[in-house]
Amino acid sequence: MRIIRFHDSNGNIHYGTNYKDGSATILTGDLFTGLTPTNDRQAVQTLLAPIPTPPAILCIGLNYRQHAEETGADIPERPVLFMKNPAALHASGSPIVLPPCCTDPHQVDFEVELAVVIGDAAKNVAESDALNYVLGYSVANDVSARWWQKKGSGGQWNKGKSFDTFCPVGPELVTADEVPNPQALQLSTVLNRREMQNSNTADMIFSVAKLIEFLSMGMTLLPGTLLLTGTPSGVGVARDPQVFIKEGDQIEMAISQIGTLSNSVIHQ
Amino acid sequence: MRIIRFHDSNGNIHYGTNYKDGSATILTGDLFTGLTPTNDRQAVQTLLAPIPTPPAILCIGLNYRQHAEETGADIPERPVLFMKNPAALHASGSPIVLPPCCTDPHQVDFEVELAVVIGDAAKNVAESDALNYVLGYSVANDVSARWWQKKGSGGQWNKGKSFDTFCPVGPELVTADEVPNPQALQLSTVLNRREMQNSNTADMIFSVAKLIEFLSMGMTLLPGTLLLTGTPSGVGVARDPQVFIKEGDQIEMAISQIGTLSNSVIHQ
Repeated sequence: MRIIRFHDSNGNIHYGTNYKDGSATILTGDLFTGLTPTNDRQAVQTLLAPIPTPPAILCIGLNYRQHAEETGADIPERPVLFMKNPAALHASGSPIVLPPCCTDPHQVDFEVELAVVIGDAAKNVAESDALNYVLGYSVANDVSARWWQKKGSGGQWNKGKSFDTFCPVGPELVTADEVPNPQALQLSTVLNRREMQNSNTADMIFSVAKLIEFLSMGMTLLPGTLLLTGTPSGVGVARDPQVFIKEGDQIEMAISQIGTLSNSVIHQ
Repeated sequence: MRIIRFHDSNGNIHYGTNYKDGSATILTGDLFTGLTPTNDRQAVQTLLAPIPTPPAILCIGLNYRQHAEETGADIPERPVLFMKNPAALHASGSPIVLPPCCTDPHQVDFEVELAVVIGDAAKNVAESDALNYVLGYSVANDVSARWWQKKGSGGQWNKGKSFDTFCPVGPELVTADEVPNPQALQLSTVLNRREMQNSNTADMIFSVAKLIEFLSMGMTLLPGTLLLTGTPSGVGVARDPQVFIKEGDQIEMAISQIGTLSNSVIHQ
């Protein structure tokens, strides 16, 4: 099933499916135990991220070889875990907001990533069993303020990754049964109609299953945890000249079988 | 008010106060909008962390000058933010559990810290107004697997800080009105009756108010966010010989006006 979450015209929040022509079939039930279509269709007033605020946003750095190389980093021996503040979660169709501390100098970058939503609490899960814990997949933009990431907080990346609106996800959550192989998905970024990233999840250094094994080692991944699995090469900071996003930009991020995440950019 | 959270003998969860002799006065209401004492006292079967699973656990590294010096790090120009997985939250009185990946070699360290719980959503808050967003204070142990922190995840600290049980907090949440000056609290660690840390929050490089200003810049601190404010000198990794915690150890962490957090240690 392909699931959206949205505000109707009365401000009520629904899960929906079969989203087209600005309306969706209402789903009843619980995201984690099962949603069922109703006969009711409603107009989608505002699209929300397809999941509520997650208990954690776990992110992996440098998980594509060419991206590690373009940033000058070593190929990691183990997954590099950083986190985003959960309030950074943001919807497709709503603008990314650059706070004043991120526009002088301009430094905010785009990163297309396969997003994974954990369905069942996962701890000490083996790679071979890991995909059974996945509720579904979506498209994410791991928006990154490069100065804050690298210089502004002692070399720890979390602050530069955690500004509000810096985690757009969506538009749909595609349940795991519809994605037989998460390691065979083409993913791309188009910024103002110019292609900036184009790669395949086959090129991940650590697969989704391997990441879940690593992360769940001694550590419970709570249901609803959002996992961003790393970005391929082509990010703005590694270009010559460098490209950073600014007011008026339009970003389209597509992953085959999953969907297209679309966000404009404004300054606060 | 001094607030605990606990399981009664029927497995029901309550907030309580006036905790002594193994029982507590039951509180009704909501932690964030106000708890009120009832006439009912109940036996405390199992103490829980004084807050439910937080939306985020934000932690500050190197926030005491002597601790930065003992680890060989530079004095930070801005707060160093890392995060813990929220499932790491743990109670006073329950053992810290060392997973197999953290005992060969032994590497797990203790860090006493003043814990701050955010009461109201905080964004772009000025230092002068910041303490108005604090619900209360508690004692935390920022349990740290040093190899995983420094080597095991590409230099990003989060994985080594996030194993389950690695964030004991408690026993009580002391509401902000009872702590007129959070920068005048003595804090100490006693490991197996040997004093390992003893300092004062007056020695923080960045005060609680300054940390809230920094963290809330462009980034919403959701109600219930747990902020660990850094540890003073005396941690095990900086000692000669080094001291790491192991099965059978007993750790007592005290902060004046706030309380004493007590945890034993077991191996998984």
